[in-house]
Amino acid sequence: MSKIYLDYAATTPTDPRVLKAMEPYFCQKFGNPSSIHSFGQETRKAIEKARQQVADLIGAHSEEIVFTSGGTEANNFALKGAAYALKDKGNHIIVSTIEHHAILEPCKFLEKQGFKVTYLSVDRDGIININELKRVLRPETILVSIMHANNEIGTIQPIAEIANIIRNFRNSKSETLNSKQIPNFKFQTPLFHTDAVQTVGHLPIDVGKLGVDLLSISAHKFYGPKGVGALYIRKGIKIESFLHGGEQERNRRASTENVPGIVGFGQAAELVKKEIKKEIKQLTGLRDYFIKKNLAEIKDVQLNGDPIQRLPNNINFSIKGVEGEAMLLSLDQDGIACSTGSACSSSTLEPSHVLLALGLSEEVAHSSLRFSLGRYTTKKDLDYTIEKLKIIVNRLRKISPIY
Amino acid sequence: MSKIYLDYAATTPTDPRVLKAMEPYFCQKFGNPSSIHSFGQETRKAIEKARQQVADLIGAHSEEIVFTSGGTEANNFALKGAAYALKDKGNHIIVSTIEHHAILEPCKFLEKQGFKVTYLSVDRDGIININELKRVLRPETILVSIMHANNEIGTIQPIAEIANIIRNFRNSKSETLNSKQIPNFKFQTPLFHTDAVQTVGHLPIDVGKLGVDLLSISAHKFYGPKGVGALYIRKGIKIESFLHGGEQERNRRASTENVPGIVGFGQAAELVKKEIKKEIKQLTGLRDYFIKKNLAEIKDVQLNGDPIQRLPNNINFSIKGVEGEAMLLSLDQDGIACSTGSACSSSTLEPSHVLLALGLSEEVAHSSLRFSLGRYTTKKDLDYTIEKLKIIVNRLRKISPIY
Repeated sequence: MSKIYLDYAATTPTDPRVLKAMEPYFCQKFGNPSSIHSFGQETRKAIEKARQQVADLIGAHSEEIVFTSGGTEANNFALKGAAYALKDKGNHIIVSTIEHHAILEPCKFLEKQGFKVTYLSVDRDGIININELKRVLRPETILVSIMHANNEIGTIQPIAEIANIIRNFRNSKSETLNSKQIPNFKFQTPLFHTDAVQTVGHLPIDVGKLGVDLLSISAHKFYGPKGVGALYIRKGIKIESFLHGGEQERNRRASTENVPGIVGFGQAAELVKKEIKKEIKQLTGLRDYFIKKNLAEIKDVQLNGDPIQRLPNNINFSIKGVEGEAMLLSLDQDGIACSTGSACSSSTLEPSHVLLALGLSEEVAHSSLRFSLGRYTTKKDLDYTIEKLKIIVNRLRKISPIY
Repeated sequence: MSKIYLDYAATTPTDPRVLKAMEPYFCQKFGNPSSIHSFGQETRKAIEKARQQVADLIGAHSEEIVFTSGGTEANNFALKGAAYALKDKGNHIIVSTIEHHAILEPCKFLEKQGFKVTYLSVDRDGIININELKRVLRPETILVSIMHANNEIGTIQPIAEIANIIRNFRNSKSETLNSKQIPNFKFQTPLFHTDAVQTVGHLPIDVGKLGVDLLSISAHKFYGPKGVGALYIRKGIKIESFLHGGEQERNRRASTENVPGIVGFGQAAELVKKEIKKEIKQLTGLRDYFIKKNLAEIKDVQLNGDPIQRLPNNINFSIKGVEGEAMLLSLDQDGIACSTGSACSSSTLEPSHVLLALGLSEEVAHSSLRFSLGRYTTKKDLDYTIEKLKIIVNRLRKISPIY
């Protein structure tokens, strides 16, 4: 049985060209980049090249890129780093209710340390309420963090518009702030962070146009290796380190650098920069084909998330009367991989906090399936999937007590 | 020019057998271990196998191993995790003055958050003062962290003896503690952590015999890949998470697992477990040969660190009248890689905090060189190194204003 992978939003295979770039950095070019000798110089050069490649993908300067162990660390770094750096200036943070757990859980931790968090609601399609944001901004707000696109439903937030609101709010405050925690730095609060783990490598990104101060990236979401990511920190912004120790990453992130991982990340960024336009076109076509055909061929199916402001590779359905998990397991038996909710919470039986935030009932939320397409997805894969899904849905509906 | 690498304490090359084990997990077996489908099950199995391999190396149960992005994260996790979990029970932490920066810098951060840290002094050879430890333990001490062996001078601390003192101190307190931060957990404080980044893979380790509650490991120090490590957390101990987000690692460390890295870590652990006895014997022989020959052939050289309680692969000399950095760069030109101080602080010009803590003058501290041997070191490499070092020292001493 050939296998069909439609869970690219959970993780992607490493592109063979990426692995090829990484390979010399395991056994041959293995020096510690902090070492002064030639073994160290060689790997330092390699990570600086990768830093430039990642910076180029998002329109940043290379010194604005701090490598991390992945998107979760980048998010923890952004939230906790901003909170601790700015705690003498305020204790208020704003996020949305549909953020990834890697944002919501650091918020819970910070709440235990005395910070206050406002959770912005979203509309039926998953877009935050801009007026609500304007209302809840206050002088002690030190950070706003709104994800670029949602990992479950694919909805893309109006980040540039949000940045504009924050900039206007900053300008309406007269003072320039000076933190006691980190001397000699001046910038106005609140900072604006976006978790772009689902969009970098999938949409064209320009941090200048987005107007963000901090942006999280994960390599394994766009054909780079697992275990590496980055936080973009706009020049002039200083946040508290998250990993304390040695002076790596210009004293912003301690730990011996994951050289092969970083090299692979850089290579993945370079590849995607070249190929993104073509890929978006191709995936959008496949996505819309899949949505249309599913809606036509299976009754009582609804698309979750914004139909237009949506990731090119995301499809999220609720299929009336059947459990998402039952469909997922049946599809898996037919060699098709997809997901319900996000991979990170798939071990729990709770309905997705994202789908509930859209206003869906628990029943509808529980009947959801996410298909996420990628570089190797073909129309044939999608036809086969629909064929199988039709059979599975019919079978499960026959034994469903609620259909 | 053939190159000679004598900086294994900074990092080791990945063993080709380790890379071979990792390779299928990039492009073929790439599922997210949190995914329910078969792609996810396959990689979940792989990380659980690696967890067992790492546990076996240190005499732990597999559920006591939490994978991290490396030794620095493991140390940050241990210190901050214990501090935040136990802050309602006390705010006092004890470490030694010669800890790695990945311990000292988290301590500085925690001091800014209101915790108090006592720094234990060490004797001329780098061993902590046991009586001082007994004196500074107090009811509000929540954590003691003493490194297993020092990365610069190789001195091995009497960890089991320290654990015994801590156990006796715990028993002298009558109450059983109950944290408000994490409900339903009961254990006595202080916890005992050891940074074993320099010893795991280099000395036989049994966490039971050592008597520690928490122990940090780094894979790239023993022929595993960079970017992966682990924190051993003794069964029954709960500390606050460091990376908050998804429910990976039994809810103890969020972030999509670095599957290839973890697989390589496991493979490195298995290899080293088989080969450690032979390797210790071989390295100890080479080390002692190198020390003896250097002391015989170059005048005014002293060995830093304990001559007996010492890592099998560590040599640290002070060579009177010459700058360590000048020697290092000259050796590098001859194709020989070694270090001054630790790799993580090599970009600063500060003398090593470790050597100063031994009571050495700044001048003597500045004249140090560390050679660290490894799996591929030969007697011929060492002979060549001494030959070159002799020439370099003679040349530099001729132009030295202080010799």
